[in-house]
Order: sequence, then structure tokens, then C-alpha cells
Amino acid sequence: MAKKIHLNAFEMNCVGHIAHGLWRYPGNNRHRYTDIRYWTELARLLERGKFDALFLADVLGVYDVYKQGEETAIREAVQVPCNDPFLVVPPMALATQHLGFAVTFSTTYEKPFAHARRMSTLDHLTKGRIAWNVVTSYLPGAARNFGLDGMIRHDERYEIAEEYLDVSYKLWEGSWEDGAVVRDAERGVYADPDKVHLISHEGRYFKVPGPHLSEPSLQRTPVIYQAGSSARGRAFAAKHAEAVFLGGGSVEALRRYAGDIRRQAAACGRDPGHLKLMAGLLAIVGRTEEEACRKLADYQALYSVEGVLAHYGGGSGYDLSAYDPEDVLEYAETDHGRTAAAQFTKDSPRPKKVREVVETLGTLGGRGLFVVGTPEQVADKIEYWVEETGIDGFNVTQIVSPDTLRDFVELVVPELQRRGLFREEYEEETLRERLFGRGIRRLPEDHPGAAYRKQPTLT
Amino acid sequence: MAKKIHLNAFEMNCVGHIAHGLWRYPGNNRHRYTDIRYWTELARLLERGKFDALFLADVLGVYDVYKQGEETAIREAVQVPCNDPFLVVPPMALATQHLGFAVTFSTTYEKPFAHARRMSTLDHLTKGRIAWNVVTSYLPGAARNFGLDGMIRHDERYEIAEEYLDVSYKLWEGSWEDGAVVRDAERGVYADPDKVHLISHEGRYFKVPGPHLSEPSLQRTPVIYQAGSSARGRAFAAKHAEAVFLGGGSVEALRRYAGDIRRQAAACGRDPGHLKLMAGLLAIVGRTEEEACRKLADYQALYSVEGVLAHYGGGSGYDLSAYDPEDVLEYAETDHGRTAAAQFTKDSPRPKKVREVVETLGTLGGRGLFVVGTPEQVADKIEYWVEETGIDGFNVTQIVSPDTLRDFVELVVPELQRRGLFREEYEEETLRERLFGRGIRRLPEDHPGAAYRKQPTLT
Repeated sequence: MAKKIHLNAFEMNCVGHIAHGLWRYPGNNRHRYTDIRYWTELARLLERGKFDALFLADVLGVYDVYKQGEETAIREAVQVPCNDPFLVVPPMALATQHLGFAVTFSTTYEKPFAHARRMSTLDHLTKGRIAWNVVTSYLPGAARNFGLDGMIRHDERYEIAEEYLDVSYKLWEGSWEDGAVVRDAERGVYADPDKVHLISHEGRYFKVPGPHLSEPSLQRTPVIYQAGSSARGRAFAAKHAEAVFLGGGSVEALRRYAGDIRRQAAACGRDPGHLKLMAGLLAIVGRTEEEACRKLADYQALYSVEGVLAHYGGGSGYDLSAYDPEDVLEYAETDHGRTAAAQFTKDSPRPKKVREVVETLGTLGGRGLFVVGTPEQVADKIEYWVEETGIDGFNVTQIVSPDTLRDFVELVVPELQRRGLFREEYEEETLRERLFGRGIRRLPEDHPGAAYRKQPTLT
Repeated sequence: MAKKIHLNAFEMNCVGHIAHGLWRYPGNNRHRYTDIRYWTELARLLERGKFDALFLADVLGVYDVYKQGEETAIREAVQVPCNDPFLVVPPMALATQHLGFAVTFSTTYEKPFAHARRMSTLDHLTKGRIAWNVVTSYLPGAARNFGLDGMIRHDERYEIAEEYLDVSYKLWEGSWEDGAVVRDAERGVYADPDKVHLISHEGRYFKVPGPHLSEPSLQRTPVIYQAGSSARGRAFAAKHAEAVFLGGGSVEALRRYAGDIRRQAAACGRDPGHLKLMAGLLAIVGRTEEEACRKLADYQALYSVEGVLAHYGGGSGYDLSAYDPEDVLEYAETDHGRTAAAQFTKDSPRPKKVREVVETLGTLGGRGLFVVGTPEQVADKIEYWVEETGIDGFNVTQIVSPDTLRDFVELVVPELQRRGLFREEYEEETLRERLFGRGIRRLPEDHPGAAYRKQPTLT
């Protein structure tokens, strides 16, 4: 039997997430991002399509590298304005029963204690449908907005993230034992104080005595997502992540990354099957090939090269306006980040000229997995990618909201289901069970977070 | 015509907010606080009762003063477990159209940039129904959970709060001009960069360049609530607050506080009518006096003195277990706080013995405004309190959830409406309009936050 895939929708609480310029497309709903019903409608659509989860990206500053200023990002709505991603989750949870939610939160600027409670609250309110996409943030503007003079160096950001996760695991796994909450009205005991523990964390970056303020939720630790693509980011993912978002990349690069992360996970003592690998996917679907191509042409006509370059600037640290078109770019790891955009040069078999980079960036689907066609053609490509790369699923990106996802749900999902590649019904309760099988609500024993569980004391 | 009153419900995202021990009452729904539908049902109930808003308290640590440890608080569920208050608001906003929401957030431990975006996001999602209850936090455990060795001194916490609000006003009022968002698809301009400003804040505690990540919401600045009762807290409220929660207190004390805050507000150049003063109110209502008294007896039987003393300990800094019953307590301002509990001794005409304090604390309604009776009796008392003290409304506290508020909505509200003391229908859109009149969506000109508005430049 064919391996079943996992599907996330890739979104952001803003006007311009990835498809820059497309907010201008007639009928696009993106400007409704401030409307609570934009989100509940989207969630119901995804649940109708049996998606695993909605993945919400985030940033904490404005993209200001391109042309050395924020003007382009503001004019083109390149991830600004951008609202908080956590707060749209509970109404979507109310509007659905099964859909999961992966929210992005940076370990670099806000302290772990309140964040751990926010995640526990979400896991309670969604009844175990929450994932945390752990990021360390790549925008220098974000650092300044939190009072720093500039960005913390890339590798130190990951050191902070390591300790941040340790603190979080201690709060989620080690503070309240199973059975701590007894709700014994007769004896007047809501929780047994002997089973609620201080975590007494004292580390290099954080000091947190605890206890955790939240009683245990269904998953305790949210499903850990990660999307780092640098060497350090991949090592971090191999250790902590249960779902890894491989943004962009060619088939060869995806195969290499997937193999590398699984090998590193095994070297950490983890079952490589305990990580699900997802690649970004842009699919433009039509009932006929002509319809799909017409959509592509319509979208491409509104795609904003300026917007894309502003986005690329913040993500990569390269201001392409400062180069001559004939200049040659080579991949380099900088403190700005190694995002999908930076990988664009990394995966390239040869250095590229600036004009080639601009041309590719300015072409819809120029980076990452991209397919235009009928549902059958899209499903063929999906089967091919899964077989060739060994990935487990996809983050489906939107061009026009909700048209792109509605097309996917109504046209592609049924075709995937016919082929036995995707679930027909939801069968599990929590998001972790959906990814790893029924009954697996908590971190598996080989995950580093599991080490913080309190073992029953033998007396 | 009689002055119309304002009504908030006073709640918290936890099992044991104020009515300690009452989670044991048969049929009490408090253990359902982790269930998203507990909150949407409550919100619908309050909207049926035409309440102004739901007020959500919060803490960031465990009450550990009483008996020098956390055991009592944990056993009795005294504000622990306690989940995040922000995250229950959006689903309640989805379930209602008019009800406002006042969420508590401390200025002491988390930085203003992300908080300002969370508030803007809530104001967008609720379409202008948000208030922020500004607190500086009184639990030493909270300070330690955010990496501090102990509490920041009381007056310095207010210095931080002052600058925190300045930063927030700059982000909400001064960063995006009216008209910055143009959504001009023809020209490809979502926002006009010339009308989106850095705030370039550099102060003693915070450095925030901005710009704000959120485009302006209906209210921009959320309605500012405050509940500080110390001299410094009242001065802060007089300057910033649009609604002040006067917890506890006798009629004489409330009259004195109300007059004092209005005088101080006037001294700050504010119209004293631009502050609404609300007092905590516990009303136990029955269709007959006997029914009300029976309820009181049932509730009192389950009221937990231990729980109340644990709560009092954290709020006041006094561990009453460490005193002899015959010892005498006098009011003193400490770094722990001057909460309603501390006012209990402050308002007392004479020093009290510990056993008297314990006895009063252990009696339902022993502190603050309290009435037991028929709807007519309750309405009589409400009229009396408003006339005698000059306050504008009440924060109605729950004993049993949702029975207490259902009784209030079904029995007391119609009586208040009959007397012309309370609205029959919602007539305004935003929470600020509900408090101050139709059309008043934004901060008034005499509020310090209004000074940060960008004036149109004359050229």
C-alpha cells in the first residue's frame, strides 16, 4: 500500500505572506486577515479537506534590507502589517473538531515561562491539536524591537533555543505529574501538592523556579515543528523536531536534506520515523490544463518582483538592489539567516548572476516544489516527489486566498484519496496521534523532552 | 433620569478565582475552564444580560506566602492552575457581537513590543471590544519565574509601567497614521510608507524603534483599565485609566477613593467623567429572601478559609498562619501589594486582631460590596451604592459558575432595566463607545496617549 502523506496549509496572519502582489487579485480575501471569520472559514475548508494542520508563520520586525529601508515592505504589504498568530487559533478550534494548528514562536526575544503557559492554554483549548514551530528569528529589526542593539549571533540563538526548550520541557513534562489533579471534592483536594513540582531551572540564559501554572494538557508538550535549514538549524531539528519544514529546494536537495536529518536524528538516539518531513508546495490546479495555465498567467501578471526582493532581502541579508545585474552571488552563511531564499543560492550547482536570481525569484514557483495542471497531474507530481525524496508530506502555500486551498481541497485531495495517498476520514484525536498513530499523544521515549518526566518514586 | 450603570463580570482562566472552595459545589462548572465552550457559553450569557464586558484577572506565579509554601494554593486550586487570559477572548468574540473583554497583563515582566501587537490583534478580531487591565504584579514567585531574584520595588514597578504605556501609546497612536492603509490595487500600494512611522523610543527601561507591526484597529489603544489601590497605583490610574476597578471597601472608603481619583484625574488635566469607576460586587440572589439565604448558607458551608488565607497571603504579604490569633494587624504598604485584601486592614477604623481578620476573610462577602436577597433588594442596594459613593458600575464576581451570573442576568438585570438603571439594548459598536458614548472610539484628547498621535504636517 502506498505511504499516506500529511498535509499542512502554510499561512500567516497578514496580508502578504509569500505571494507578494497577489493581494491585488480580484476576489482575494487576504485583506480580511483581521476578520475572525476569515480564519474560521479557512479552518473549516481545511477540515473539509482532511488536512493535518494549519501552519502559521510569523515575524517580529519589518523587512528592511532591500534598498536599505522599510518602504518596499510597507508599500507592498510584505509581511507587514502582521498580527499575532496565536490569537486566531482558538476561534478556529471552536469552528473545527480535528484540524491541527502549528504556531510560530521565536525563542530569542520573549521568556519561556509565559510562552509555556500560552502553549499549554492552546493545547487545552484545542484538546491536543497544537504544534509549536520553533524559530530563532532572522530579522535584525526584530532584535531591535526587543531592546537589543542588533541580532544575537546565529549559533548563540540556537544555544538560547536549546535552553529555552529545556525549560519548556521541564514545565510541560516535569512539573505536574500524571495524577496530580485529583479533583476530590470530598477531601477538598483539587491537586495533590506532592505531585506538583518546582522545576528549579538555573541555566546560562534562564532562571525559572516554576511550578508550571497550567495543569497537564492532552499532549503536554506541543508537537515540535522546526524549519531551520542551516547546519546548526538541521542539527537542532534532528534533536528536537517532530515535523520539519523543508522550504524550497530541488528534488536532489530535498532527498539530501531528508537523508541528512534522519541520519542525524538516529545519531541522537531517535527513531528517524519519529520525524515527519514536509516540503513547501505551490500547486496551481485547474479542471483542465488550460484552466491551470490561465490561472498561472493571471497570477504571474500580478506577482510583485519588488515585493519578492524585499522578502528575499530580509530572509537572506542580501540587498539585491545594491548589485550590478552581472554580479555573481555565492552561498554564504550569515547571521541574517539561511531561509528557503538563501538556499536558493545554496542549492544552485553553480554561482548565479544577480539578474538570474532576480529572474528566478520573480517567477511564481521559481523556488521549491511547484506544479501547474490538472488534479491528476498534480497528484502524479506529489507521488513522484514522495518517492524520489522520501519526504512525508507538504506545506501547501496560497497564491489567492482561499481559492488556492479550495482548489486543492476540492480537486487534488479527492484524487489523492482515490490513489490511497491521503486519509478519507480523521481517525485520531490529537495532532501528535495524527502524525504518529493512535494512542501516541505524548512525546515518545526517545525524544529529549521525555527525559524530564517524573518517574513514579519507588518507596 | 437615573444614571445608567455599567456592569462587568469578574472572572479568571482558572478553577479558583475568588470563591475558594466552591469548586466543590455540585454543578459548579469551574473545572471546565480548559474547555473553550465554557467561555463561549459564559460570553453568550453575559451578552444576553447586556453586560458591558467580561473582566479577566491573571497571575504569573503561585501564592506561596501562607504557611511559607505553595501547598495550600495547589491543594485548594487558589488561582493555580491558571491559564492565559488572552487566548479565551477570540472564541468569545466569535460567539458574541457586543460584549467587551478586559484582559489583565502585567507591565513588569514581558516587553511592550509583542504585547502591543497582541492587544492590536485582539482589537482587530473583536472589532474594537478590547480593554487592557494594566497591572504591575504582586507575587514574588512571578518575578522569579521571569529570572529576577525577587520583586522589583513597588514604586519602580510603576516607573516601568509608565514607560511601558508610553511605548504602547507610541505604537498604537503614533506609528500608523489614519489613511496610511490605502489598499490601492491599481497603484500596487497597500500602505503608504510616508504615513507609517518608526517610534524610535529610547527610554530608561525600553528601547523600541518600531514601527508597530499591526495596522490601526478600531480603538487603536485598548480601553485602559486599572485596579491599583496604593497611593502610587491611584495616581497611575488617575493619569491613564479609563475604567478603575475599586476592589472591596466600605461605602465610606469607596466614596473617598472615587473622589480622590477624580480629583487627581482633574489635576492631570483630564475630565473626571472620562474615568468610569467600578466596584467589586458579590450578589447572592433568590426569587425569595429564603431562597437567597439558603444559597448563602450552602455556599458558606463550602467556602474554604484555608484557600482564602492563601489568597490573602499572596496579595498582602501577610502569612496569617505565623501570628497568634490575639496579635494585632495594622495597615502597612509593602512591596507585596496593596490589594483589596490589604485594604481590608487599611479601611478598618481600628487595628484588628488576627482572629477577627481570619473570621472576616472566611465569611463570604466579608470584604467589599455584598448583598443577599431578592432582585428588588439587590437593585435597591445597587441604587444606594451608586448614590452614596458616586461610582459608575460594578464588577460582578461569581461564587458558582455560571449560576451566580445567570441569576444576576435573569433576575437582577430586568429589575435594573425596569428602574431605568441599565441599558435595554446595546447601542454602540466598540467598548469605549459603550463606556463613553457613541462615536468615541478612540482615546479622548485629554488622555496622555492622545499626545502621541501624528498631526497632519502642514506644508
